[in-house]
Amino acid sequence: MDELKAYKAHLHEIGKLDSALALLAWDQRTYLPRKGQETRAEAIGKLTKLSFQMATSPRLGRLLDGLGARDGLSDEDRASLRVVGKDYRRRKAIPARVVERFAIARSKSETAWERAREASDFKAFLPHLEEMVDFSRRFADYYGYKESPYDALIEDYEPGMTARELRTIIRPLREDLVPFIRHLTAEGRRPDTDVLSGHFPVEAQRDLALRALRAIGYDFDAGRLDTSVHPFTIAIGPGDARVTTRFLDALVLSNLFSSLHEGGHALYDQGIPEALRWSGLDQAASFGIHESQSRMWENSVGRSRTFWVFFQPILAEVFPQFRSVSPETLFRAANVVEPSLIRVEADEVTYSLHIMLRFEIEEGLINGTTKARDLPDLWREAMREYLGVVPKTDAEGVLQDVHWSTGYFGYFPSYMLGNLYGAQIYAKAKEEIPGLEEGFARGEFAPLLRFLREKVHQHGRMYEPKDLVRRATGEEPDSSHFVRYVKEKYGGVYGLR
Amino acid sequence: MDELKAYKAHLHEIGKLDSALALLAWDQRTYLPRKGQETRAEAIGKLTKLSFQMATSPRLGRLLDGLGARDGLSDEDRASLRVVGKDYRRRKAIPARVVERFAIARSKSETAWERAREASDFKAFLPHLEEMVDFSRRFADYYGYKESPYDALIEDYEPGMTARELRTIIRPLREDLVPFIRHLTAEGRRPDTDVLSGHFPVEAQRDLALRALRAIGYDFDAGRLDTSVHPFTIAIGPGDARVTTRFLDALVLSNLFSSLHEGGHALYDQGIPEALRWSGLDQAASFGIHESQSRMWENSVGRSRTFWVFFQPILAEVFPQFRSVSPETLFRAANVVEPSLIRVEADEVTYSLHIMLRFEIEEGLINGTTKARDLPDLWREAMREYLGVVPKTDAEGVLQDVHWSTGYFGYFPSYMLGNLYGAQIYAKAKEEIPGLEEGFARGEFAPLLRFLREKVHQHGRMYEPKDLVRRATGEEPDSSHFVRYVKEKYGGVYGLR
Repeated sequence: MDELKAYKAHLHEIGKLDSALALLAWDQRTYLPRKGQETRAEAIGKLTKLSFQMATSPRLGRLLDGLGARDGLSDEDRASLRVVGKDYRRRKAIPARVVERFAIARSKSETAWERAREASDFKAFLPHLEEMVDFSRRFADYYGYKESPYDALIEDYEPGMTARELRTIIRPLREDLVPFIRHLTAEGRRPDTDVLSGHFPVEAQRDLALRALRAIGYDFDAGRLDTSVHPFTIAIGPGDARVTTRFLDALVLSNLFSSLHEGGHALYDQGIPEALRWSGLDQAASFGIHESQSRMWENSVGRSRTFWVFFQPILAEVFPQFRSVSPETLFRAANVVEPSLIRVEADEVTYSLHIMLRFEIEEGLINGTTKARDLPDLWREAMREYLGVVPKTDAEGVLQDVHWSTGYFGYFPSYMLGNLYGAQIYAKAKEEIPGLEEGFARGEFAPLLRFLREKVHQHGRMYEPKDLVRRATGEEPDSSHFVRYVKEKYGGVYGLR
Repeated sequence: MDELKAYKAHLHEIGKLDSALALLAWDQRTYLPRKGQETRAEAIGKLTKLSFQMATSPRLGRLLDGLGARDGLSDEDRASLRVVGKDYRRRKAIPARVVERFAIARSKSETAWERAREASDFKAFLPHLEEMVDFSRRFADYYGYKESPYDALIEDYEPGMTARELRTIIRPLREDLVPFIRHLTAEGRRPDTDVLSGHFPVEAQRDLALRALRAIGYDFDAGRLDTSVHPFTIAIGPGDARVTTRFLDALVLSNLFSSLHEGGHALYDQGIPEALRWSGLDQAASFGIHESQSRMWENSVGRSRTFWVFFQPILAEVFPQFRSVSPETLFRAANVVEPSLIRVEADEVTYSLHIMLRFEIEEGLINGTTKARDLPDLWREAMREYLGVVPKTDAEGVLQDVHWSTGYFGYFPSYMLGNLYGAQIYAKAKEEIPGLEEGFARGEFAPLLRFLREKVHQHGRMYEPKDLVRRATGEEPDSSHFVRYVKEKYGGVYGLR
């Protein structure tokens, strides 16, 4: 067989295993009964190992070497060789036995976390957390790094990013954002949110989520909406990108924004073109770019004034109590800035501070300067300093996120980068699409989706995140767009101008 | 590694792949979005191939040979070697190129059957049916047999059963049951089923199914209930045996009995003991024994008089229209005998005649005494003789079942054997458990479940079906129990005494 064909066929075989793995993971987080967890962990371990073996096989190595020396390849094929080659070298860095042990430990750690969070029992989770940290530190050593072991881990989520650059990016946010929030909450007029109180039955909330997803263009023939403790999006494979949400009886907007958020992720997955299928490029450019899509649909779109002109009648149809509430009132109620305990419930302004805290803690864990057992105290101190609020229980504090239980160190910064990239790309969309936000009032979201398909989705993993942002916006990644957006919007809502 | 440990580890690895495969299949039949079907088919193909490779590997062959010659093994280990060895030899018996050609032909045959059934066009399906018969006859030759090639095929579903024995088992059914049904429908008083009419919303029906499953002891920590077009039970692996049902708006009992049926299957899967895990014995003894469990819970329990004393208040709580309907009326309405055209809609009495007909036809096909082109006529004649009804179209006749299109010859008898084994084991339970049915009236199903756990479930695949029935009841498999049960119950309901 031709080397290029053999290479693509090899990636296709890996893709089949990874699709099965994705379904095992989806089911584990949505529907798996308790007593099936042990077998599931084993099945995931087995398939992870098989996929890993194929992704690190000498055969793939030879194909990469052979094709790497070849002339006349297309841009896509060269990009494929670049990203698959990088993944190959990173995977080869970790011995197979370590990978399998990690997969099993991780599955158990996730389960332990779920129970520990329910019981707010950090000690029950601590040994699993320590194990995840140990694994990650070993991984960093295997990968190698120039400056910080943390850099070796970020690479999985945000290729080309470093801890040093993150600290630089964070500084202006902290210097500008923390005082702005203080000013806003002290001097501004907080929007009335009493209009949002009530009880909102699950079935009606599900209906609302489905309508919102349909409105923004999510394709239900290529995905589905389910519920889980922690909402997530997962690409099972081509033609199947699923989202989940959760329903909180008293918080009608929580599920709505969560659904728009995950829907934004899924629109990206659904927008990866067929031409890139099974090429290694049929993925997002990075977690940060992925997050830019979810945050844009959740915040720039879903929390815009004109979105509520469109959505108020829908909300009122599902929940008649909103019939007499104006779109403007709902828009304002959806844009409250409130330092609070839970990241996933945080507003788009304070959100980045939640990430700052996590970044600093996890960088310390990976560098070895922070001990896992000290996390509850560190958490409380940082919350007091950045947000002025302190959790009473670890369930509301250090146990609130799944990420560390699953060994995702270096992941959190993507959320913040998502805000920054998202604001920058959205500013460009507004510039290029006349009447963009006026269109939202009429339920017209297709122009934005087309823009994102062209500038972001269609490229898959062809370009590194910084390069992709540059191509989409004509500028280097820059936090000024986000800061400007926040000050303008919230200055207005809070009457600071 | 010790040979025995290596053998068990090998089976465990296969089990992990099969667990993943089961989840892929479950999702395909419950939740998979349309555009994800192509990738799913590929993922299933990939894992099926990997599992098959391990199940036919020279390594497993060497382990089986080595251990087969060893002394001092436990009963369980010897049973494991027997069943795994048999599966191994049968899988190895068919050359890979034939398996591949069969897979392609089968896929075309299934598609052709679907279209032919829609158009009620038997001729369009005929060449595919002939090809499936040819393949099955060749498989029988590859497997080998003593008396009838059909015996070689039944072995997949009902180990140790033969065509000769089936003919013997069927005779009293035909001689006793056919005239009894004629007598019943001509002379008896058909129960009133008008009380069952109405509209029954999905959510309330789901509630009803959950209550019924909980009542009979189904463990929701080791399974779940979902919906699918055709209800089914699937063991995802140890600790995870799932069931599905379907909700028909006008037929409230359809979902209830379907749930009891699938629940009966799942109780068997949930009752396979941990000690047998990953031994090749952690499965049902046969399709017929599996079906005995589902039919027992559906019919012997769910259609009993005392079950309705227990369940009428529950039904009335969920659907208030039943408040004034007596348990006796519901019991009678649930026990209507009605010769009809479609197997899957048949009652427990006429069901076996549908199977008899199929067995006689397919045995002839495999022996070569029956020609596929004659099937429509044979079908109509047999329907007239056994059930007194004749299909107007082949869609309602010979084309109604998927089995032959997919090459499942020898499968149908399991359904009938399920009725017979079920009645025989249930008769023994009544004999051994004082007040068994009186207990049902109080919702006490645990004594029956304990009996089945001890007599059937705990043995997994240790014994061949006939041996298992003998151990459970002290008698050879015998259709007289079923005939007696039917005559007694329906003679009473229809006022023939």
